[in-house]
Amino acid sequence: MAPLPAPEPARHLETTASLEARKLRFEVNRVALPMGVEGTFGLIRHPGASLAVPVLDDGRVVVLRQYRFAVATRLLEFPAGTLDPGESPLATMQRELQEEAGYSANRWDPLGAMLPCPGYSDEVIHLFLARELSLLSERPPGDDDEDLEVVLLEPGQLDAALAAGDEYLDGKSVTAWFRAKQLLGL
Amino acid sequence: MAPLPAPEPARHLETTASLEARKLRFEVNRVALPMGVEGTFGLIRHPGASLAVPVLDDGRVVVLRQYRFAVATRLLEFPAGTLDPGESPLATMQRELQEEAGYSANRWDPLGAMLPCPGYSDEVIHLFLARELSLLSERPPGDDDEDLEVVLLEPGQLDAALAAGDEYLDGKSVTAWFRAKQLLGL
Repeated sequence: MAPLPAPEPARHLETTASLEARKLRFEVNRVALPMGVEGTFGLIRHPGASLAVPVLDDGRVVVLRQYRFAVATRLLEFPAGTLDPGESPLATMQRELQEEAGYSANRWDPLGAMLPCPGYSDEVIHLFLARELSLLSERPPGDDDEDLEVVLLEPGQLDAALAAGDEYLDGKSVTAWFRAKQLLGL
Repeated sequence: MAPLPAPEPARHLETTASLEARKLRFEVNRVALPMGVEGTFGLIRHPGASLAVPVLDDGRVVVLRQYRFAVATRLLEFPAGTLDPGESPLATMQRELQEEAGYSANRWDPLGAMLPCPGYSDEVIHLFLARELSLLSERPPGDDDEDLEVVLLEPGQLDAALAAGDEYLDGKSVTAWFRAKQLLGL
């Protein structure tokens, strides 16, 4: 894939307030935008994350039904996780695929970098396609506050679930599935 | 479309800190998750937003090239905006389509509700397909800190831009485009 565009930073003038919670930091910053306007904006600083679209040899995809307190709902999501300090996006994803879904993968292809909330978060999620999967005999322990179950879906079943309207659309998962379908020619 | 699932709220125990910036509020909350675990989590409270995929009669889509300070980049995005107090998602989008893109639309179809950051934001973005567009003779004034230009793309050009890897993937826009392609049979 081609290189991403060079950054065009806003000029940071002052951080007037900040708060931290686990891996997140919220800042209120006064900045000068490239267009010349100055303003005060809230911003989440996030260490970044990885997501994988895992595809079994028979074509089914590995999806999670995961509880999310922020939206009080169980969502259909692909396995994903936050980068640990110093960890590469691929290493994060190899770890999370084992912890969350109980699979390892031999074949990894990048699907690009997605921005979940570019209006107020600097989070970048690195997307991967994971193939040549093996079910682990024992799943390694993950975060103890995760509440999820593994679901195997045919591509057509996943498309139908997203089209039906009775499912919230998880931005990172739909974006990754769009790119996976492009790469797989589905 | 079918109704979305009923909410399954986590039990709120305590807000230990909070910060506000414009329409965003960041809270650090102690909550009891449905699975029984208690924990402290950061959360953005957001008033919600709307997004439209505007399709011209000749099949081209109306896209914006918009600067986002949080990620220091100009992104390819569909027109979108935050709900004003008491404003319906459709009214927000009719206003934003005029302010950001300079078009009005006669035909509106819902494309579902997407969650950009369900791990740490309660934001819901209401997606629409906008058709039967008319270019306004004069664009109404929008936010004075917006830095954007209007781009018209063939569907195949948009798909190619998302596949090329030299473009950050904006989650809300790719998700909306996925749903629009489903509805339009593209």
